[in-house]
Amino acid sequence: MDDITFAHIQQAAERLRGIAHVTQVVTGRQLDETSGATVFLKCENFQRVGAFKFRGAYHAILMRPPEEQGRPIVTISSGNHAQGVALACRLLGRQAHILMGGLTNPIKRQAVLDYGATIHEAADHLDAERKLPTLLEQLHGVYIHPFNDPLVIAGQGTVMLEFLATVPDLDVVLAPVGGGGLLSGTCVAAHGLNPAVKVYACEPAGALDAIHSVRENRVVPMPEPKTMAEGLKTSLGDVTLPLLRRHLAGFFVVEEDEIPRAMRFAFERLKLVIEPSSAVALAPLLRREPALAGKRVGVILTGGNVDLSAFFDQFRSS
Amino acid sequence: MDDITFAHIQQAAERLRGIAHVTQVVTGRQLDETSGATVFLKCENFQRVGAFKFRGAYHAILMRPPEEQGRPIVTISSGNHAQGVALACRLLGRQAHILMGGLTNPIKRQAVLDYGATIHEAADHLDAERKLPTLLEQLHGVYIHPFNDPLVIAGQGTVMLEFLATVPDLDVVLAPVGGGGLLSGTCVAAHGLNPAVKVYACEPAGALDAIHSVRENRVVPMPEPKTMAEGLKTSLGDVTLPLLRRHLAGFFVVEEDEIPRAMRFAFERLKLVIEPSSAVALAPLLRREPALAGKRVGVILTGGNVDLSAFFDQFRSS
Repeated sequence: MDDITFAHIQQAAERLRGIAHVTQVVTGRQLDETSGATVFLKCENFQRVGAFKFRGAYHAILMRPPEEQGRPIVTISSGNHAQGVALACRLLGRQAHILMGGLTNPIKRQAVLDYGATIHEAADHLDAERKLPTLLEQLHGVYIHPFNDPLVIAGQGTVMLEFLATVPDLDVVLAPVGGGGLLSGTCVAAHGLNPAVKVYACEPAGALDAIHSVRENRVVPMPEPKTMAEGLKTSLGDVTLPLLRRHLAGFFVVEEDEIPRAMRFAFERLKLVIEPSSAVALAPLLRREPALAGKRVGVILTGGNVDLSAFFDQFRSS
Repeated sequence: MDDITFAHIQQAAERLRGIAHVTQVVTGRQLDETSGATVFLKCENFQRVGAFKFRGAYHAILMRPPEEQGRPIVTISSGNHAQGVALACRLLGRQAHILMGGLTNPIKRQAVLDYGATIHEAADHLDAERKLPTLLEQLHGVYIHPFNDPLVIAGQGTVMLEFLATVPDLDVVLAPVGGGGLLSGTCVAAHGLNPAVKVYACEPAGALDAIHSVRENRVVPMPEPKTMAEGLKTSLGDVTLPLLRRHLAGFFVVEEDEIPRAMRFAFERLKLVIEPSSAVALAPLLRREPALAGKRVGVILTGGNVDLSAFFDQFRSS
């Protein structure tokens, strides 16, 4: 099922019922006034593990074939996918092994341990990828890719299914793009319900690989992405790229200094704690992007896992 | 109508329909695990002006007699009531004059100005009270008390009406107590719908006047309240005191160091920005107060107006 259809996302939604939270949609007059649009925020920062990633991880692990039962689940992630896999494994009675490369947000690391997963250290993401085959062999493990997996994508697509069930008449949807798992699921779900909805990818200027990949129709890697939106440093995969090419209306590029500004707006005006990746999807509205003027705009706030010290540091330095 | 009845609150809810937000109720498994209770958070931090105070202010100003039309509205407040009055006046086409005593949270001050209100400076709250009669005379103004006013109380009571409409089977409700406007409205609304609900007042140890006032059946003033929960420094009034005596199940006293801890929990675990006053109502759950174990507990998160710098300072010093 490399081609993900609307039916796959509906099935995923059935399987996630009662397991994943149906997250709130928040609105705010100040946000509408600031942006010149009518804005709806889908709060996946309220999702289990504090981010949408739980949906895809749970769905993909649930749907592994029965003959794999008993084999541990392995993944590479220093972020929300790690937490998603760890919690999903706890709920499904499976062992989780997480390869983490480099510095990790301490709140995410602690959550992974609290869910009972085992952490394997790597120097950085590349080192983690090098170590993966050996670890999989040693553990006789099953690998769950963070985004380039149709079952993961179908799970992430359920966000949009819920969003349009709550607010059916959106003109535009904004979501951040890293590996494109959420975004491609979003596209398929949105266009399954309403082909007229325009889905835009929001990408930080310091990690501009998706925009080039979609234009050139090949995965253009980003050797040294530089952005505080850790979750968006990843490049697209061969499953997500064709979906984005088919469905995306366009890209909004977000400058680095817009990220803490959007986090501050969320904190002070919306009373919401959002991660830098979420801020990337909010930023085009705060700068009154002309294409959004007067539109009904849905924003996927992807997560809220920020620890206080990191949050302080970002503002001290910005 | 010094005696506020359930019908008054129902009428207030009718009048606020489409004007005040129907705020979200948020739940969280980590909060349930930490507290040993099943917790529901009524998010008045998402209310217009970022706090429940808008409800009472709007309702009281709307219901002033027609012969007062054209006369400006005057109040004393350095906090959310000031914002509530300022926005209500803008919506109702009236002039607002706010006497502010002492240091004011800059985010609240700016919001008041943005709503078009005039700020009158006073050295502190006492000085503001001294200046009030002259100002009222000069302006031929109409005074709106922040809490000791039946119309204000009826407006604040609508929070609880909504809360029980969303979650009908609460065992216990927690709300912070300052002047008792929200709390007495909460009591009347809760017991109008379900006399078995237990309403508890949460009061900071550094401003323990309500607990003594209720016990001694007289307004016991607090000469120098010391707490970061600015909104809770006020003493009860002669309208709120008898209502609290009749309805309250009891008090939870919250130590000062529990306040930033609850704010941090809200930030990191719930992804919510809450004011110190809201944190006071959350704190008894985080310390696993025995009376709440196993109960379905509703918490009124009263507001979320914290500016980032003040937020940082609180954690640097705690």
